Amino acid sequence: MSLAIKDDEVDIVIGALRSDLTTFMNEWRPMFSRFHVIIVKDPDLKEELKIPEGFNLDVYGKPDIDQVVGSSTSILFSGYSCRYFGYLVSRKKYIISVDDDCLPARDPKGFLVDAVAQHISNLTNPATPFFFNTLYDPYAEGADFVRGYPFSLRGGVKCALSCGLWLNLADHDAPTQALKARQRNSRYVDAVMTVPARSLIPISGINIAFEREAVGPALVPALRLAGEGKCRWETMEDIWSGLCVKIVCDHLGLGVKTGLPYIWRTDRGDPIASLKKEWEGVKLMEEVIPFFQSVRLPREA
Amino acid sequence: MSLAIKDDEVDIVIGALRSDLTTFMNEWRPMFSRFHVIIVKDPDLKEELKIPEGFNLDVYGKPDIDQVVGSSTSILFSGYSCRYFGYLVSRKKYIISVDDDCLPARDPKGFLVDAVAQHISNLTNPATPFFFNTLYDPYAEGADFVRGYPFSLRGGVKCALSCGLWLNLADHDAPTQALKARQRNSRYVDAVMTVPARSLIPISGINIAFEREAVGPALVPALRLAGEGKCRWETMEDIWSGLCVKIVCDHLGLGVKTGLPYIWRTDRGDPIASLKKEWEGVKLMEEVIPFFQSVRLPREA
Repeated sequence: MSLAIKDDEVDIVIGALRSDLTTFMNEWRPMFSRFHVIIVKDPDLKEELKIPEGFNLDVYGKPDIDQVVGSSTSILFSGYSCRYFGYLVSRKKYIISVDDDCLPARDPKGFLVDAVAQHISNLTNPATPFFFNTLYDPYAEGADFVRGYPFSLRGGVKCALSCGLWLNLADHDAPTQALKARQRNSRYVDAVMTVPARSLIPISGINIAFEREAVGPALVPALRLAGEGKCRWETMEDIWSGLCVKIVCDHLGLGVKTGLPYIWRTDRGDPIASLKKEWEGVKLMEEVIPFFQSVRLPREA
Repeated sequence: MSLAIKDDEVDIVIGALRSDLTTFMNEWRPMFSRFHVIIVKDPDLKEELKIPEGFNLDVYGKPDIDQVVGSSTSILFSGYSCRYFGYLVSRKKYIISVDDDCLPARDPKGFLVDAVAQHISNLTNPATPFFFNTLYDPYAEGADFVRGYPFSLRGGVKCALSCGLWLNLADHDAPTQALKARQRNSRYVDAVMTVPARSLIPISGINIAFEREAVGPALVPALRLAGEGKCRWETMEDIWSGLCVKIVCDHLGLGVKTGLPYIWRTDRGDPIASLKKEWEGVKLMEEVIPFFQSVRLPREA
C-alpha cells in the first residue's frame, strides 16, 4: 500500500533560534543521520551556531536569505519563520521539520519514537478525508476499515501533510499557558487520523512533515504578528499557513493527517510575559476563521 | 463544564439475541446496577430469557411489540433491530446500549472500563464539531484547546451521540471479517473526539449512547437487508440510522463523538457463511453515500 521512498528524497529542516544545537542534534542523531539536514539560523541570532559533527547538512544564515530574497524581506524569515527559508531552498520531495526545543519522545512502553519514520509512513500511506474511519488509520498495522465504510473510498488519496503532536509541554496559546503554567501533556494517544475534508484544524509547525512538491508553495510565513517574540505561544505564522494548506488540500483532493508521531517539548520562556503580545493573534483568529471557512478556490486553480 | 445528570435520567437498553444473559448481566453489574434497564427480546427468539436477579429492569417481547406498533411491523424489530423498540418505549433523557455479546473491556493498565460513566461524560461535556482540536477532547482531564483554536468556538455545543469502540473483535463487514478472520483489535486509543460537522461516519450500534430527547426519533431501524442474519457483520441498520443522525446533528448544530469507551467483543458466527448475505449492504453503501453527502434539510425542519 505504502510507497517506498529513498533517503535522498527527504530534507530535515531545522530553524535554529538558539546557538547551541549540540544536545538537540545528538538526541536526534539516530533519526536524522540518514537524511540531508538544512539548518536555517534565525537572522536575529548573533552568536555562531554550535552543531556536532557527523551530519550531512547545509547551514543558511542572514546573508543567504538576503541573497535569495533580498534584504528588505529578511524580516519575514526571522524567529520561528526562518525555517520557511529552508522550505524554499529545499529541492527534495519531502520535508520534515521540528522546533529546536524538541527532543525525541518515548512511547508508553518506554521505546524512543522515531518521529521521522512515522512522518514518512504517514505521508506515504493514503489519507481518507472523505469518510471518517472510527478505528483511525485503516492502513496502520492490525487496523482496517470498519463495517459501513464505502468500498469505493477505501483506496484513499495522497497524503500531503502530517502534523505530529507533543508530550510534556503542549502547544497552547499564551493565555492558556499562563493559566495552566504547570500543566503537562502526558496522554499518549496511539493513533493517526485523517482530518476530514472541509474541517479546519490549527496546524502547528512544531513537528510537521509534508510533500514539498505538492503543498510547499502554500507553506510560507505570510503572517507575522507585530511584537511577536521567540516563544511558540507568541506565534501564529504556522496556524495561518496551516489554514492555507488545509484549504489547498481540500481543493486538490489531498489529505492532511494528525496524531502520531509525538515529540518531547522542553520548556522555554515565560508565558506571563508573553500575554501582552499574544492577544493580537488570538483576536485575529476570530476574524480570519469565517473567511477560511467560506473561501472557495476556482476549479482551475 | 459538564452537566450533572441523575441516575434516573438514563435507560440502559439491551437487545437480547440469545436467551442466556447470565454472564452478560453479571459482568456488567457494577456499571448497570445503578440504572434502569430495558431488555428487548428478539421476536425471533423462542426460548425464555435467563436474566440474573438484582437489576431494576423491564423486559419486552413480541407481544409488547405487536401491541404497541401492530403485528405487521414487528419484523422491523427483529434481530439486532429489537433494541430500537426499547428506544421507542423509553421515557428517559439518555439511552445507553451495548450488544449482548459484549463485555466490559480493560484499559492498558488493566483497570475495568466503566463504559456507562464514559458515555455519560461524553454526552454531558460539550462537543466541538466546527473546528478540529489536535489534542482531541479539550474537556478531558489534563487537556485543553491548542494554540490557534478560536476562542469563540471553545464553548462547544451539546453532544447528542457518543459512539464507543471495540477491543478484541473489531466491527468489520463480512468480507473484511472473512479475509482477516484471525485479526483482533488490541490498539487502545486513549481519546474521545468530536466528528467534524459535515463529515460522515459509519456509526456502529454495538456500543452507543445518545440523548433520546434530542435525536431519539432519528434512531429507527429503517433499513433492513433482505436475508439479514443474526451476526453483526450482516447488518446495516445502525449504519443507516447513524448516517441519518449525523445529518440531523449537523443540521441542528449538535455534536457526535467517537472514541472511548471501549467494550470487549466476543466472537460469534461464521464470517464465511455470512459473505453471501452481506454484499447487499456493501453495495448499498456505494449508492447511498452520495445521497447523504448532498442532502440538505430545510432550515425550519
